[in-house]
Amino acid sequence: MPTNMNRQIVLVRNPEGAFAASDFEIHESPVPKPGAGEFLVRNLYLSLDPANRLWAAPMQTYVEPVQLGTVMRGFTISEVVKSNHAAFKVGDIVQGMDGWQEYAISNGVNHNDNGNIDTWNLRNIQQAGLPLTSGLSILGTTGLTAHYGLLHLGQPKAGDTVLVSGAAGAVGSIVGQIAKIKGCRVVGTAGSDEKCRILCEEFGYDAAINYKTENLIDAFAKQCPDGVNVYFDNVGGQTLDAALLNLDYGAQVIICGAVSQYTTAEQGVQGPDNYTFLLFKRASMHGFIILDHYPTQRAQMEAELIDWIKAGKINYREEVVDGLENAAAAINRLYDGRNMGKLLVKIADPVS
Amino acid sequence: MPTNMNRQIVLVRNPEGAFAASDFEIHESPVPKPGAGEFLVRNLYLSLDPANRLWAAPMQTYVEPVQLGTVMRGFTISEVVKSNHAAFKVGDIVQGMDGWQEYAISNGVNHNDNGNIDTWNLRNIQQAGLPLTSGLSILGTTGLTAHYGLLHLGQPKAGDTVLVSGAAGAVGSIVGQIAKIKGCRVVGTAGSDEKCRILCEEFGYDAAINYKTENLIDAFAKQCPDGVNVYFDNVGGQTLDAALLNLDYGAQVIICGAVSQYTTAEQGVQGPDNYTFLLFKRASMHGFIILDHYPTQRAQMEAELIDWIKAGKINYREEVVDGLENAAAAINRLYDGRNMGKLLVKIADPVS
Repeated sequence: MPTNMNRQIVLVRNPEGAFAASDFEIHESPVPKPGAGEFLVRNLYLSLDPANRLWAAPMQTYVEPVQLGTVMRGFTISEVVKSNHAAFKVGDIVQGMDGWQEYAISNGVNHNDNGNIDTWNLRNIQQAGLPLTSGLSILGTTGLTAHYGLLHLGQPKAGDTVLVSGAAGAVGSIVGQIAKIKGCRVVGTAGSDEKCRILCEEFGYDAAINYKTENLIDAFAKQCPDGVNVYFDNVGGQTLDAALLNLDYGAQVIICGAVSQYTTAEQGVQGPDNYTFLLFKRASMHGFIILDHYPTQRAQMEAELIDWIKAGKINYREEVVDGLENAAAAINRLYDGRNMGKLLVKIADPVS
Repeated sequence: MPTNMNRQIVLVRNPEGAFAASDFEIHESPVPKPGAGEFLVRNLYLSLDPANRLWAAPMQTYVEPVQLGTVMRGFTISEVVKSNHAAFKVGDIVQGMDGWQEYAISNGVNHNDNGNIDTWNLRNIQQAGLPLTSGLSILGTTGLTAHYGLLHLGQPKAGDTVLVSGAAGAVGSIVGQIAKIKGCRVVGTAGSDEKCRILCEEFGYDAAINYKTENLIDAFAKQCPDGVNVYFDNVGGQTLDAALLNLDYGAQVIICGAVSQYTTAEQGVQGPDNYTFLLFKRASMHGFIILDHYPTQRAQMEAELIDWIKAGKINYREEVVDGLENAAAAINRLYDGRNMGKLLVKIADPVS
């Protein structure tokens, strides 16, 4: 039941290592009122993403750090409950960046340093009959990141070998399936034999490598005997270094994330000592932030992904944790390898 | 005077750190005779390049390591003195990879793992009235590397900031001048105040930074206040890391070399710990080997560079050391910062 109070999870301390419960406090304040050009949303689902750890650190990344004493930043699915904004009507279900809280005021533009409007109406997902949560997973930042990074930057051809780290995660599990649709050999890394089994059985990977038990350099050489044409990196660290040693000529390396480094990012990241293989193999390494491409690419990518889902060509997994108050405990599942697929927090059911 | 003996400098030991005289031996053997489809060249000039140190190490790079007991590999300018090859006539002056020796047999294809014909007739240089040595400097691998890397991969626009490390070297000094022709702000690093002065006075750099005395992160921020749009890296190490911290959005990082790392490359290279700024800044990093692009691009690049030289838009420096026997002593000038511009060894004058 909606009340007239807004529960918010506020970052009160920069984490050291993994997130700790004491890094956050729960605050309550009256539900705010939208001003001119603004709208009020009730958050339904909160996305937990590896990059959240970077945002909570007092360091330069691609967005401003979350200031201590303010609501923790996060992608959300929300229902518009009051609106003074022409483009967002009461009852609209939107995907935005409305944070770790029950209610938020939005003007449709969030923490995107290119200034793009990154609140997105989910009517296409609703019309397709897909669950709202898909707007934060396969059809949200993670699925769209997989689509854009692999196809626009990686540009794999049929017969190419695509290597994916963090392959059981929300991005990696989609990357592998898109690569299979494109006719590639697809190899992934994950942190348990059970995840490796699921990669092959559920997500269509041709081979899966348990990075905790296997020598990655040897395993990549064995599973990618012709070399890696596209390496989609979610984890960084030793996995990136091992992949660089196994590139084929003209390879594309897609830097999507570096989750192995995030809980210690303040102390510095371990860079890829084998980066000279970019030179030796005439390869390129690309960074990107999917939010930049929403205005021009999201609609087309969303339509293509919906087609693939409906055709049964793509599966996706979600882990939904119930209750905003459990977000802080749940998020460390992303960094210690317990998570599988997209990690979400359910905050509320839609009113409408 | 030609004799019937061929002096050769043979690699007999993998260097540890800098090259040592004892890594090489001088051998003499009869001048060989070309077989069918081959030609005999007399080497006139030998190019000394930073990558030579990589080739002499027992490690995987972009070419096979030089085997112990064989002639040290090197780019050369040579005169064809006998020929059974339709494309190379006696008296032709060619640029190839004919090694640290007085004479060599060639079939026109050298150590290029893409199998391209990389022996190149220098008639355009002769017709333009330019010195033969320019075929190993401004119009050789180094000048062409500068041209291709900056313009094809970096694609700077007028008004962009181009940062060049190793800016006083054979590649860097050309990169900066081409960037100026394209209307960029150009900032370079070098290892002495004298080199920095020459960068600005002779090569048109807008600013030069002495990496031995200045804090690179601060200096890059000061000299590139709008961020770096194209970073052309010849040195790697801490310079690369400092440049990554100063990228503008959408920057292109060109990995041409990593000379700061080459004399210890066997023990591992220091990778760029700040590589996540590729992600934060939506940037790309590219490796390339110029030899790949000779068949399709060399003629056009050579013509453009000749035009710029004749128009007085581009200067180049060469350091010519006399005598093949002095190559081993001279090459360390590339790694200890003594070298300025293109380092060459004169072996002989043309016969014709």
